[in-house]
Amino acid sequence: MKALFITLEGIDGSGKSTQAKRIAQWLEDFTGRRTICTFEPGGWEGGKTLREFILGSKSYNALSELLLFLADRSEHVEKIIMPALNSGHNIICERYNDSTLAYQSGGHNLEIAHVKRIITACNFPEPDAKILLDLTPETAFERMKSRKNLNDKFENDKFESEGLALMKNVAKFYRDSSENFIAVNCDKLSEHEVFNEIISRLEAMIKQCQSR
Amino acid sequence: MKALFITLEGIDGSGKSTQAKRIAQWLEDFTGRRTICTFEPGGWEGGKTLREFILGSKSYNALSELLLFLADRSEHVEKIIMPALNSGHNIICERYNDSTLAYQSGGHNLEIAHVKRIITACNFPEPDAKILLDLTPETAFERMKSRKNLNDKFENDKFESEGLALMKNVAKFYRDSSENFIAVNCDKLSEHEVFNEIISRLEAMIKQCQSR
Repeated sequence: MKALFITLEGIDGSGKSTQAKRIAQWLEDFTGRRTICTFEPGGWEGGKTLREFILGSKSYNALSELLLFLADRSEHVEKIIMPALNSGHNIICERYNDSTLAYQSGGHNLEIAHVKRIITACNFPEPDAKILLDLTPETAFERMKSRKNLNDKFENDKFESEGLALMKNVAKFYRDSSENFIAVNCDKLSEHEVFNEIISRLEAMIKQCQSR
Repeated sequence: MKALFITLEGIDGSGKSTQAKRIAQWLEDFTGRRTICTFEPGGWEGGKTLREFILGSKSYNALSELLLFLADRSEHVEKIIMPALNSGHNIICERYNDSTLAYQSGGHNLEIAHVKRIITACNFPEPDAKILLDLTPETAFERMKSRKNLNDKFENDKFESEGLALMKNVAKFYRDSSENFIAVNCDKLSEHEVFNEIISRLEAMIKQCQSR
């Protein structure tokens, strides 16, 4: 079986980073391949500058912001994702095309067909599996506020400034498209239960692919 | 007749800024409409930051650079071009979609159909007329070097760093697509002769539009 490209989606505070690490560990054992965790925006050498540039500004319109995120993706795909897959390593990527759809269309009201046309025109590689951590924004918001040590200044800035209204629209967009994902409703599950649910479905998917 | 949206294309050093000012003055008299000169990248409030961000870096791949230029265009269209046209003012814009085609496809070898698909997906407004100042790169390069006072640090940086080889590819791309433009070969014409050639053809085009 070839190296796997897996994306992890969900609103801020849904637990993507925590689950990414656990899934990577499991996937490394299960597939015997090195597994690399990465993220967007900014998950490449030099990406911090572009990430800060995008997230630090509030003045861009929805289309500009979309194009800036895609510029970041183009570097990330070229410098991190493709080299890893070509070397036989699995990739777990926090946020990818579905974040662009959820935030720019669901969150910022760009027409979904318009966003899809631009993303499709870029020809980025398709993931083998997409995981969605489905969490109500209210719960995510409480979790974010209660974090003692925020590792990620920008994530917090963005969340605070855009507020609950945006997150509700983004969460609704994700939920409405949950049939495209290995989607796990996280509201009433512990971190460990969420992890178990993900890997049981991921394992089934991988075995199904292997049997073809 | 409605307000006109006119773009001006050509390699660095081809005289776009000089001609833009003269054409604007003429167009203002001829149409009785206020005429605004603008440019890409960076021709909007706040655009200087994005312009410096794009042109100051040499580390982006061709697709990223394309997407960054389109992000700049999206702001420029929203904040300058559309408000001006909607207020009944003409626009003369140095560089627009054809620069993206010429530099990212002709200069940096992205497949032309790929570049066109992404630009088309953005739905930017189409110009009423496109002017091409067709000049050999060698002549442009000499003119650039002989400029006593460089107003535009970045234009010079970019030109110097990318060099003649890139400019030759860009100039060839422009020339090969010259049927899409009011194209004037500037190599053997004075600034005034170039201007006269442009406005005689622009005037004919405007009269033809008026008679419809």
